Amino acid sequence: MTSSPTPVSLRIKPGPNRLAVTGIGNAMLDIISQDDREVYRDLGLVKAAMSLIEEDQLDVFYNAMGPTIQMSGGSVANSIAGVAALGGTCGYIGKVADDEFGERFRHDLRSMGVELDLAVAKAGEGATGRCHVFITSDAQRTMATYLGASNKLNVDDIKEDLISRSEITYIEGYLFDLPPAKESIRKVVNFAHDHDSMVALSLSDMFCVDRHRRDFLDLVTSDVDVLLANETEILSLFQFDRLEQAFGALDEIGVLAVVTRGAKGADVATVSGVVSVPAFEVEHVVDQNGAGDMFASGFLYGLALGADPVEAAELGSLCAGEVITHLGARPESDLELLGIDAGLL
Amino acid sequence: MTSSPTPVSLRIKPGPNRLAVTGIGNAMLDIISQDDREVYRDLGLVKAAMSLIEEDQLDVFYNAMGPTIQMSGGSVANSIAGVAALGGTCGYIGKVADDEFGERFRHDLRSMGVELDLAVAKAGEGATGRCHVFITSDAQRTMATYLGASNKLNVDDIKEDLISRSEITYIEGYLFDLPPAKESIRKVVNFAHDHDSMVALSLSDMFCVDRHRRDFLDLVTSDVDVLLANETEILSLFQFDRLEQAFGALDEIGVLAVVTRGAKGADVATVSGVVSVPAFEVEHVVDQNGAGDMFASGFLYGLALGADPVEAAELGSLCAGEVITHLGARPESDLELLGIDAGLL
Repeated sequence: MTSSPTPVSLRIKPGPNRLAVTGIGNAMLDIISQDDREVYRDLGLVKAAMSLIEEDQLDVFYNAMGPTIQMSGGSVANSIAGVAALGGTCGYIGKVADDEFGERFRHDLRSMGVELDLAVAKAGEGATGRCHVFITSDAQRTMATYLGASNKLNVDDIKEDLISRSEITYIEGYLFDLPPAKESIRKVVNFAHDHDSMVALSLSDMFCVDRHRRDFLDLVTSDVDVLLANETEILSLFQFDRLEQAFGALDEIGVLAVVTRGAKGADVATVSGVVSVPAFEVEHVVDQNGAGDMFASGFLYGLALGADPVEAAELGSLCAGEVITHLGARPESDLELLGIDAGLL
Repeated sequence: MTSSPTPVSLRIKPGPNRLAVTGIGNAMLDIISQDDREVYRDLGLVKAAMSLIEEDQLDVFYNAMGPTIQMSGGSVANSIAGVAALGGTCGYIGKVADDEFGERFRHDLRSMGVELDLAVAKAGEGATGRCHVFITSDAQRTMATYLGASNKLNVDDIKEDLISRSEITYIEGYLFDLPPAKESIRKVVNFAHDHDSMVALSLSDMFCVDRHRRDFLDLVTSDVDVLLANETEILSLFQFDRLEQAFGALDEIGVLAVVTRGAKGADVATVSGVVSVPAFEVEHVVDQNGAGDMFASGFLYGLALGADPVEAAELGSLCAGEVITHLGARPESDLELLGIDAGLL
């Protein structure tokens, strides 16, 4: 069951325990390195894409990296951190191991006031997930991800509480890589429908879309209210060459969609046609990692506040503009203040 | 025995194993948080200063912090990372524990090509040192440091090899807080003198200077060739009110000194008087943490290359200018490229 594609009348329902957005995704630590020597090539990684690696490859990848900065990551977890930085109440559902990385992941969201429902993997189910991020001088990021404990999220870990209190339930497309993905995602969607929480989906990665195209299409067609993707992901979903074709398909499905296009801004597909929102201008792009995640923060929080989708996309652009000026995929500034200064909050 | 205060003729001696600079200091991981809520106050920290904390306080401090970014730190270790980023060969002597933090510290310097002589603390001697860094919106950093294993560096850990091959041996003033400080520092200085390695000293922190003023003064008077300090540190050393008085004292001692003054640049005390070098202009200062450390990188590497002290200070300003534009005390850019572009390398 799909809600109206333009939720202009959406407001955060009154009540002390309401949440703007709850996210479900792969809980990850990011291990970030400037990669001027392009060692990602020697490691067999595809530039600007996310490749999956196994636990026994962790040492090889880490040892090949230059000096690193470590911080919490995970695509939807980053978006949730962004909503919190915008002043929104939010929740997060994911899975970590009982280790130092898991503790750091927990700390970083909790310290922003995010309500957590973090399942803890059993011994032998792997360490907390981590993503090796190689930033090249063109500000592109190439990723090698060890899913670890995050990949053990199962249907029993999906609880109703946070979803039942949320305006929007935001699902990470990467979850389709989980072995019991469909059951878990079905449970999330059912909880959301039961409580009138809008279902938002990130397509996450063009290769992930390629691996699970049929499942993505089924979900988008039947259950998703808001779809977030970049150009390559949306083209991969429909296997089209041109964005116009994708927007045609989205229009037929009747889903509110936003397609982020890097420096070209974002295209919002609304009932009244496609509206382009320019990228926020920044002096110097350091690291595009997190741009899509932070766009989602502003966009979803805007929608949860009752903004129309174009206004919400403007807030998304503002948040994306902040995160690309520094290393790392989480905001370094008070996004709420930036949003107020820009007249968007 | 003090060398000439203006080492204009210094050159890196030929040989495949020569090092520009070897540093000795407290090996630390930095745990960095934007602190818009100024929680550092509730923790009883003195703004912009470094306070020492004990192992049993670690949880309290970490739990009070907002989301964190973690990266290797340590004042002189940062300077050494800066020399490596400038293209210089270098070494580092310090002490870590056999834990994940220690492994990360080792990784980050080794991956830059730094030769390491990292002693490993015994079980029960504490965890790898870590520094909780609170960055306020005025770009000031307030620090709470757990010395841990770094504080167990003892005279047996000081080896001749790296020092014997170095143009400059750079000693962190914080080492005076080590229980066996004087013996260890004496050993470092003796090795340096034995091999014609210039002795450079960072005063590190005004409170540290205050705790060990007599020892600092003895070292500066008898053994130091190059002294690096900021305004408050140099005033604390001599207990003067005005910089002119400090420069008078430095002139009497006959030590080459550079005093960093934040946005006001740096003053170089040479045999021909005090020369001011402007700070490198940057658009927006995010985090002053590491400014002094990176200034030292450029200054010492310049001296090791045979630059005159004023030119060396210009290279220092360039490096400091890079590090204050982002979070963290280590460079994110290829400093060698920046130096070449600026005509300083």
